[in-house]
Amino acid sequence: MESGSKGPGSLFNRNLVSIKQLDKGVIEEILAESERMLEIYKSNSRPNLLAGRIMASMFFEPSTRTRLSFESAMHRLGGSVIGFADPLSTSSAKGETLSDTVRIMSAYADILVIRHPTEGAITGALDSASVPLVNAGDGTGQHPTQALYDLFAIKKEKGRLTNLNVALVGDLKHGRAIHSLAYALAIFGNSLTLISPQSLKMPASMVADLERSYGIRIIQHDSLDQALNADAVYIPRMQKERFSDQKEYERVAAYYVIDKRFMAMAGSDTIILSPLPRTMEINPEVDTMKNAAYFRQAAYGVPVRMAVLKMILKGR
Amino acid sequence: MESGSKGPGSLFNRNLVSIKQLDKGVIEEILAESERMLEIYKSNSRPNLLAGRIMASMFFEPSTRTRLSFESAMHRLGGSVIGFADPLSTSSAKGETLSDTVRIMSAYADILVIRHPTEGAITGALDSASVPLVNAGDGTGQHPTQALYDLFAIKKEKGRLTNLNVALVGDLKHGRAIHSLAYALAIFGNSLTLISPQSLKMPASMVADLERSYGIRIIQHDSLDQALNADAVYIPRMQKERFSDQKEYERVAAYYVIDKRFMAMAGSDTIILSPLPRTMEINPEVDTMKNAAYFRQAAYGVPVRMAVLKMILKGR
Amino acid sequence: MESGSKGPGSLFNRNLVSIKQLDKGVIEEILAESERMLEIYKSNSRPNLLAGRIMASMFFEPSTRTRLSFESAMHRLGGSVIGFADPLSTSSAKGETLSDTVRIMSAYADILVIRHPTEGAITGALDSASVPLVNAGDGTGQHPTQALYDLFAIKKEKGRLTNLNVALVGDLKHGRAIHSLAYALAIFGNSLTLISPQSLKMPASMVADLERSYGIRIIQHDSLDQALNADAVYIPRMQKERFSDQKEYERVAAYYVIDKRFMAMAGSDTIILSPLPRTMEINPEVDTMKNAAYFRQAAYGVPVRMAVLKMILKGR
Repeated sequence: MESGSKGPGSLFNRNLVSIKQLDKGVIEEILAESERMLEIYKSNSRPNLLAGRIMASMFFEPSTRTRLSFESAMHRLGGSVIGFADPLSTSSAKGETLSDTVRIMSAYADILVIRHPTEGAITGALDSASVPLVNAGDGTGQHPTQALYDLFAIKKEKGRLTNLNVALVGDLKHGRAIHSLAYALAIFGNSLTLISPQSLKMPASMVADLERSYGIRIIQHDSLDQALNADAVYIPRMQKERFSDQKEYERVAAYYVIDKRFMAMAGSDTIILSPLPRTMEINPEVDTMKNAAYFRQAAYGVPVRMAVLKMILKGR
Repeated sequence: MESGSKGPGSLFNRNLVSIKQLDKGVIEEILAESERMLEIYKSNSRPNLLAGRIMASMFFEPSTRTRLSFESAMHRLGGSVIGFADPLSTSSAKGETLSDTVRIMSAYADILVIRHPTEGAITGALDSASVPLVNAGDGTGQHPTQALYDLFAIKKEKGRLTNLNVALVGDLKHGRAIHSLAYALAIFGNSLTLISPQSLKMPASMVADLERSYGIRIIQHDSLDQALNADAVYIPRMQKERFSDQKEYERVAAYYVIDKRFMAMAGSDTIILSPLPRTMEINPEVDTMKNAAYFRQAAYGVPVRMAVLKMILKGR
Repeated sequence: MESGSKGPGSLFNRNLVSIKQLDKGVIEEILAESERMLEIYKSNSRPNLLAGRIMASMFFEPSTRTRLSFESAMHRLGGSVIGFADPLSTSSAKGETLSDTVRIMSAYADILVIRHPTEGAITGALDSASVPLVNAGDGTGQHPTQALYDLFAIKKEKGRLTNLNVALVGDLKHGRAIHSLAYALAIFGNSLTLISPQSLKMPASMVADLERSYGIRIIQHDSLDQALNADAVYIPRMQKERFSDQKEYERVAAYYVIDKRFMAMAGSDTIILSPLPRTMEINPEVDTMKNAAYFRQAAYGVPVRMAVLKMILKGR
């Protein structure tokens, strides 16, 4: 098992741990495969590409959305699923290390999809896996398939993946989805507008790395008005548990809100994206507007994960 | 998606939310389909009628029996299942509304089967579903597939579904199963004998509605003796949590009990039914008697749910 | 359903409750079938031997490893799985007896795989099952498929199943896996070296029974050095909760440890086995040695369970 390897070629028999391991060519390959999977997804046909293959869905932290879209993807390709959704029902509760669990699960399944609350935990267990492994989110770390279907959604909604100005809004300090997406957008040479309160700015080292490595234009601001002319606004929920001061949370969460008023002032092509679930940062009054793209975006999670599973287990 | 619509025709591509949405013709159609499914169920053949289709099993409240019989039904028709059995592992724990969850799950599955602790919650989320939805119990509200297999069990056991006198025993105030079944029996013109303590009588408005809408004969009493001559006795467990006074619970639960003594006095054709699980209201000493129909009744849950899934996803 | 019956012939349509119910011939038949299943397992082919059959995975106590290897086995044979991993999401939480649950599940599935925290609970529910039932561990009682794949692992690693001296190390008083394996090894006429602290010795009645019934040679000792010349060392984790004195636990657990030092002194053919998960009783520094057989052993759980499911549902 080769892991974390950059380079041309497909995902066949490889781990998918971080969006950063993928170069532009591989991402384009995944997006093209996702287009083919989208056709299958829409047609309700079942090509049985992965018949007889078993995916282990290992969620050491609950995540209905990610877990069920992976499982839906596997079933749509004719595969089977085993797994757990709850850390309390696992051997870790008996003191087993993640490495040992991963080693054993490699004997039970053909591919492991792992969500873990601790950043780096999955990378640390890579060597123990004897089948390919997909990182489905590790704490504040990486969540590559999220970034991939965010990209796919932008491509489908905007018709292109380059020369865009994407506004990332809210908690840019901790957001796993935000960090992966920022890198993915940078790879394709897009501009980023980073909008957040001072206390939740994207880490300076990351901003510097994005500018240096990819030469993209980055603007930082604390006003939501800066998002009005963006091609796309990406706004994850503000997580209460990130704030030590409850009042500060309420103030900030009430300020960064997409509502009808925002939409009326925004460009006619400005679409709204979110990794969901949303709480108060997107007012439901926006849901029925054509530029509210977040539910369509969520649906793209299935074909993109079908593409990833298919490319890892079957190759091109 | 049309929902809650009465009228002739099948369930194809419709929601199943309440037994009240179904007229006599549709119920008869479902029972006839259930007969065909019962043949498949018994033969262990697998017609693959729903191959490639995905059912989302969304249980915001635990219910092994209902969940697993739906999942067994889906597998027997060749379909796949994704889902959750435990509200704590869902996005609702992150503050997501049921409407948002339903909207997203519509992108992952071809049909949603939902159990929710709150009456009316499922109806409130209907507009967000873009695939058909089956209510698998909403608090003290409706549980239509339970009523349907109760009816199917009565038909199989008694040979007919009309001109019967059915005794409903116990907590007639809160019982979800009881309320749905009462309506279903009324639609077919059967008489009801309602037996309960004063404090747990069926709501007067419901009794009046049943009499007025369907012209059926209803007798109310507090003595179990009134059930001795019924064609069928339907007795759900008394739920401790419905009583403010623990002593009152024990007194009532000890009184409404089907045991050998009751069976000896009852008519030779009086069958015993229960939605199960049972606690003390049916003495296990009765289990082996031929008129103890509740375990056969439970088994009918599978073919009836096969029929519902098949009719919604495939039509007639 | 015949249960607990000794005798020639296969497992077809029988319960598998205890290793003691199986005579030598049946065990050999299972191990031979496991060899065939191992070929299927390795080849990734899917013969669909159990297509359309449903296994109920009923875990009243969490056990990722056992549950997922059974589910992997069922999927590899083309079957489907329903079930629960968590007692809290079951009807038992509503006061249902195990007998009632088993009776109902018999209507939903073709075979029941049950793990229960209470010794004897599964045996007590046997009469209520109308489909075959596999005991997947009942408290400190039996766990026959564990013993079977332990045997299979020994046979694969050592090339034979007889004339071996197997050291069983650690808590020999409570260990379910140890007890079943001791009987299984005795049936094949192997010698046992029982190594444990005084307080955790194998019950004298069991030692006597093993010697009397099978005429095997048994040595008891408290020093790990006695294991150095064994053909195989079987060492489960020491369970903290078995000790009333925490200090005593730490002392004992620190003493019975397989590490590089032990391996350097042990015979060149001495393999190390464990039912896993391991905590501190096997030092990870041993993992990469060729005689560290415990991860290969864990993988054998899948083909052995494939064999058991296939033999019960399909026969030879």
